Amino acid sequence: MEVAKTIESVRAVVKAARGDGKRIGFVPTMGALHIGHISLIEAAVKNSDFVVVSIFVNPTQFGPGEDYKKYPRPLEADLEICEKAGVDVVFNPTPEQMYTAENVTWVNVDKLTETLCGRSRPGHFRGVTTVCAKLLNIVAPDVAFFGQKDAQQAVVIKRMVADLNMPMEIVVCPTIRESDGLAVSSRNKYLTEEQKKDAACIYKSLQKCREMSKAGTTESETIIAEMRKILSQATSMEIEYVSIVDAESLQNLDKIVGKVLAAVAVRIGPARLIDNIVVDTGKQ
Amino acid sequence: MEVAKTIESVRAVVKAARGDGKRIGFVPTMGALHIGHISLIEAAVKNSDFVVVSIFVNPTQFGPGEDYKKYPRPLEADLEICEKAGVDVVFNPTPEQMYTAENVTWVNVDKLTETLCGRSRPGHFRGVTTVCAKLLNIVAPDVAFFGQKDAQQAVVIKRMVADLNMPMEIVVCPTIRESDGLAVSSRNKYLTEEQKKDAACIYKSLQKCREMSKAGTTESETIIAEMRKILSQATSMEIEYVSIVDAESLQNLDKIVGKVLAAVAVRIGPARLIDNIVVDTGKQ
Repeated sequence: MEVAKTIESVRAVVKAARGDGKRIGFVPTMGALHIGHISLIEAAVKNSDFVVVSIFVNPTQFGPGEDYKKYPRPLEADLEICEKAGVDVVFNPTPEQMYTAENVTWVNVDKLTETLCGRSRPGHFRGVTTVCAKLLNIVAPDVAFFGQKDAQQAVVIKRMVADLNMPMEIVVCPTIRESDGLAVSSRNKYLTEEQKKDAACIYKSLQKCREMSKAGTTESETIIAEMRKILSQATSMEIEYVSIVDAESLQNLDKIVGKVLAAVAVRIGPARLIDNIVVDTGKQ
Repeated sequence: MEVAKTIESVRAVVKAARGDGKRIGFVPTMGALHIGHISLIEAAVKNSDFVVVSIFVNPTQFGPGEDYKKYPRPLEADLEICEKAGVDVVFNPTPEQMYTAENVTWVNVDKLTETLCGRSRPGHFRGVTTVCAKLLNIVAPDVAFFGQKDAQQAVVIKRMVADLNMPMEIVVCPTIRESDGLAVSSRNKYLTEEQKKDAACIYKSLQKCREMSKAGTTESETIIAEMRKILSQATSMEIEYVSIVDAESLQNLDKIVGKVLAAVAVRIGPARLIDNIVVDTGKQ
């Protein structure tokens, strides 16, 4: 496995692989790799011939007061995970490699970024789309893999790639969960054992949504009230949002119909956690 | 010469050429081709092995009340010019090919788009950068050619390509002029003979800037006053701006130093005309 520190070096490695007729798979990450990331890498290994993983904690997607500085950066462990998982090259640039002093260009995806996490994290998605556009242009993969855990991010990136005619496929892989249902996240490391137990409520609330929908409830308001009840049982938890939105447009729905995304964001101690499920009502 | 009407078809043709090891050159245009465009195509023919020209009047770069609808679209003549000039494929999509109803993604280049034409044409550069990002992603050239006549556009596109790490080279070619100095533009067609004569003042004013700089004048204000005097001799002309800016940052300069851009925008009758020259003072 190679570790490329510069844009030029990762481009050279990918170019050589492409020259050999290989299909390039790409998993962009911020490191602190866990079984969620590993599942993305496994999907890349299965779906392509040459796997690139980027490890870059992107400063432009963190707001002031967010956890950019303390975001975990266990590089040695990450590289070991990549090696074992069958990655061909890790791209691990410095912030200075990725952003020069002259940088003034931003990719903005409107509308889709104004709901859910976009409300409480102004500028976050602009940072995500811009760094992803850069990384996708640097690596130029045939296919890139994102996790369903960050549902809004996945929808936004798919939209960006389609809108800007970027010549690649985007694959969204299922959320990986702990045995109690908690979605695996690098930010779970911020939690105490007690807080982690409380965090399991998040998935329980999402399951409640699925159950109620199956049982025939269609009013979002009714379902959200029940979800909030479950979440409020965890005393360490502060709810940021509980939303039921159209799975593609991410716009709020009064009535559950079609493919909907039930999404939750909470704060527990120092962590901000998000999770979601897609419920396909089968109705139009 | 092929004419590709769809994204898929132009991609297929370019892919085949690339497969043959050819270097792809690209000239994006809005059609109504003139000797300025031909000079770009000639540069592409010289600098690459396979030349793609796009002809697309991009709706998103026109403001309300601007000339989107009446912008000339002489497709047959344009195709003939391309054929004669040695173009391999013309990409001529419909607006519906380029923009679907779902499009919500914009590429914004900050700062550089806030001066000069950016002031009077809000949203113009957002439309230019977005369509260029799309076209560059569709054609995926090794090198693309832009004209110095649209100096701000050239600076903005170069910045975008660098900032987003788009894997291609941008070449800026010299402005082509009529014998009286008027910069060749598709919008010159809007002028009467009388107005065209008046329009020759634009280049005269730019030459004045060069002369005064050579003669040692360094105060922008002094030079701009002289340039305005020349322009105001043409009674049909309404000055939009006369600016002296840094050639890279496009920020106003009180004193001429380094490489500066002297730029003029005027309205004559139904036409808005722009022109510029770069003056290299040799000083730091």
